[in-house]
Amino acid sequence: MATGFISLLFSLLSLLFFGFSSFAKPIPSFPSSIIQAEKISPSTPNELYHEKFFTQVLDHYTFRPQSYKTFQQRYLINDKYWGGAEKNAPIFLYTGNEGDIEWFAQNTGFMFDIAPHFKPLLVFIEHRFYGKSMPFGGNKEVAYSNSSTLGYLTSTQALSDYATLIIDLKKNLSAIDSPVVVFGGSYGGMLAAWFRLKYPHVAIGALASSSPILNFENITSPYSFNNIITQDFRGESENCYKVIKRSWQEIEDTASQPGGLEILRRSFRICRNSISASSLQSWLNTALVYTAMTDYPTPSNFLSPMPAYPVKEMCKAIDDPKTGNNTFAKLYGAASVYYNYSGTATCFDLDDDSDPHGLGGWSWQACTEMIMPTSGSNKDSIFPSSEWNYEDRAAFCKAYFGVEPRPNWITTEFGGHDIKRVLKRFASNIIFFNGLRDPWSGGGVLENISSSIVAIIAKQGAHHVDLRFATREDPKWLQDVRKREVSIIGKWLSEYYDDLDPAN
Amino acid sequence: MATGFISLLFSLLSLLFFGFSSFAKPIPSFPSSIIQAEKISPSTPNELYHEKFFTQVLDHYTFRPQSYKTFQQRYLINDKYWGGAEKNAPIFLYTGNEGDIEWFAQNTGFMFDIAPHFKPLLVFIEHRFYGKSMPFGGNKEVAYSNSSTLGYLTSTQALSDYATLIIDLKKNLSAIDSPVVVFGGSYGGMLAAWFRLKYPHVAIGALASSSPILNFENITSPYSFNNIITQDFRGESENCYKVIKRSWQEIEDTASQPGGLEILRRSFRICRNSISASSLQSWLNTALVYTAMTDYPTPSNFLSPMPAYPVKEMCKAIDDPKTGNNTFAKLYGAASVYYNYSGTATCFDLDDDSDPHGLGGWSWQACTEMIMPTSGSNKDSIFPSSEWNYEDRAAFCKAYFGVEPRPNWITTEFGGHDIKRVLKRFASNIIFFNGLRDPWSGGGVLENISSSIVAIIAKQGAHHVDLRFATREDPKWLQDVRKREVSIIGKWLSEYYDDLDPAN
Repeated sequence: MATGFISLLFSLLSLLFFGFSSFAKPIPSFPSSIIQAEKISPSTPNELYHEKFFTQVLDHYTFRPQSYKTFQQRYLINDKYWGGAEKNAPIFLYTGNEGDIEWFAQNTGFMFDIAPHFKPLLVFIEHRFYGKSMPFGGNKEVAYSNSSTLGYLTSTQALSDYATLIIDLKKNLSAIDSPVVVFGGSYGGMLAAWFRLKYPHVAIGALASSSPILNFENITSPYSFNNIITQDFRGESENCYKVIKRSWQEIEDTASQPGGLEILRRSFRICRNSISASSLQSWLNTALVYTAMTDYPTPSNFLSPMPAYPVKEMCKAIDDPKTGNNTFAKLYGAASVYYNYSGTATCFDLDDDSDPHGLGGWSWQACTEMIMPTSGSNKDSIFPSSEWNYEDRAAFCKAYFGVEPRPNWITTEFGGHDIKRVLKRFASNIIFFNGLRDPWSGGGVLENISSSIVAIIAKQGAHHVDLRFATREDPKWLQDVRKREVSIIGKWLSEYYDDLDPAN
Repeated sequence: MATGFISLLFSLLSLLFFGFSSFAKPIPSFPSSIIQAEKISPSTPNELYHEKFFTQVLDHYTFRPQSYKTFQQRYLINDKYWGGAEKNAPIFLYTGNEGDIEWFAQNTGFMFDIAPHFKPLLVFIEHRFYGKSMPFGGNKEVAYSNSSTLGYLTSTQALSDYATLIIDLKKNLSAIDSPVVVFGGSYGGMLAAWFRLKYPHVAIGALASSSPILNFENITSPYSFNNIITQDFRGESENCYKVIKRSWQEIEDTASQPGGLEILRRSFRICRNSISASSLQSWLNTALVYTAMTDYPTPSNFLSPMPAYPVKEMCKAIDDPKTGNNTFAKLYGAASVYYNYSGTATCFDLDDDSDPHGLGGWSWQACTEMIMPTSGSNKDSIFPSSEWNYEDRAAFCKAYFGVEPRPNWITTEFGGHDIKRVLKRFASNIIFFNGLRDPWSGGGVLENISSSIVAIIAKQGAHHVDLRFATREDPKWLQDVRKREVSIIGKWLSEYYDDLDPAN
């Protein structure tokens, strides 16, 4: 059922979310984080953490009988490096995002890499309604069945889950004075930043990596997302950009001719299932978006393996003189970088609706509070021109989930407008990392707000590249980013221990 | 029905909430704010404000179908002093507490008094489930009927109501850049402080008057409340303290003798309704608690009129040599200061369950999140010894409302532990005023936290005396407190306008 749900959902999303004249791309979720541990990962998952469960309350914000229902929230813990409660050694907490927490833990190597230095207890909490942290008896089918159950899937409930769990954990460990630093990437980075802002009594600081907390309402441009993707490819070569840009029309023209769909099927090695111009365009769009997001400087694993600098590899395929003027052959080469770098695929399934990391709940979040305008494409975009249209989103959400989005809720609850003015004299200890090759960076905090709310920018960086396991091949700029993060986190901790010291 | 509800509730509270051996006092709510406008109030209520309504969402924190229900939230507005949107003139917002908002507006003269100076738009928002701001069709009987409806009565929902309303109001007034300063006293002061902490993007600062935000868990002592009352009376005269202290036993001894209840009835001019030792003790306790809270330096109006310095007046009655050794005559004289200063009452009704200001919902809040330990009395207390007992509260709440309190929720959501350490490097622009004669001051912030989170203490002050209309008789210390508040608020505004100025 869950699979069918997601399948139907993505079809509907494709049809409805994006107002392209002729094709649609799926809602840009944050599969960013969908990068698996590098080969130099220090150990197997079994050695990285232990799995635990916490009895969590369903609804923190009402006292109705139903709100007292509980569910088992999963968290992963590693005490191998911990300096211990008696030394008030720190706790590093990953604020889980929209998927299986093991997958985030395995892809947040930075926390493991810096653990020998800081001696923290490592904790990764799974977000409600994802992975094994399923309300309503742990039954995903029930939890995802309708808006009465899914209605409890919200960012605010997730944040108070984290506060509740970590306070209880500290009590149980007699580690009341152990400082907590929160980490997160993508939506998890948004949660980390918001957690520091809303729960300063729980977390002394936050590393919010690639967290587009400004990508709401009209704070940032709805064109920035696609503009950055455009720039990523255009920056490699003007020809690469032009070929991709004209391909959308060529696909449509071909599809509308007799036998055209069969030509497209053969050109792109699509399996023997249904094909349409829009499903093919969506398939290509996915490859471009996710490759831009994960344009890492070292080989990575994103569902299937990817080479270092995959955008460059895509453009190499497109610019390859061997394919002459054959747009489809060029595009096929580019798509293969994303879909078939290992070379094992024999055909591609446009109807593939697998969701190995359990991201399906994001669609609900994108239909309620996560109204992030990213689908605008101006005339120079690598994609066909389109405008962000809230009404389309709302209509889909109404039709599909029976729910009406609250497009102003996130800024009401968490702010975002005039963030520099608001926070320059309020709050402290947040790092906003952004890699400028990441399309989500357009919605991020790119300027220092104060001496302790700082923006770290990596011009060559992609989506939360800083959080990945270090590799021997990491470029100097990435090493420098991490060094700076370690230095800042060290400062937060020193300051905390100074404040804690009764002699001060 | 509502009246019966409250009546039953207070009876049950008396019986169950306070673990006295022999009598009980009502749950200390914040009727503090129950002071009506002084005679020098600038104008009648009609001239003070206009009544408006806002369509508010029932549940901000879930997206269940039921959460989309709306209700009409009342707010009061006065634009007589406003400098206007085009000048970004400020908005002064009172974060309503547990009662009719008109009553708070009429008793927060400070906001009107300083309006000619700051030229703010004055807005007073009514707290959900109080006054006319009743969810479920505006029907109090339905709204208060059970825990499924009352469950939406929470501080967090109230805070997001305020954020939602004021953001919408600013949009409608084209006053996006008008800075908002929040004001509140008592529970309203807690809401004001929390609003600044949670919604810094909405409010640039908060005057939180007599807000016992630390009176949760074990942060402050459960004895402080009654200790302060003890000190208030003992500070007037040792004899006054001793007479009151021994009276509880004398009442019980008398009540247990044949004809004793009739003696008590006559001694205290109790009307011809039921009397018991505990109901009489509770009645006297109420007089002592509320008189200590509202021990103002000028005559005030608390349900019935009160003289200036009413604690002193009570002790005068007790120390009066004319009553010799007659404890009951002395107590009767003291009670009359609170219950019959106007001299018009002919008898007193121990069963009086009137609730003219609509405070009934506080009992629900005290059974869910507002678990504030205040009922401890040590051996020197003016009241019989007793211990704060959470289990008694929980048992009552379960029996009466069918609800289980969440005693750790407030500190989880808003903090409180180690507040100085937490906030010295986070947040800004909060004034915590406390008058040390106010029993609630024991749970307040009494030390400066940073250069902009400051504690203003008035040794001679009572419950949010600073927020009252100024009178010609106000002592210098009170004038000085208000001057300092005005100066600090002025600094917040200057800083804001400096930050707003594109030239800076």
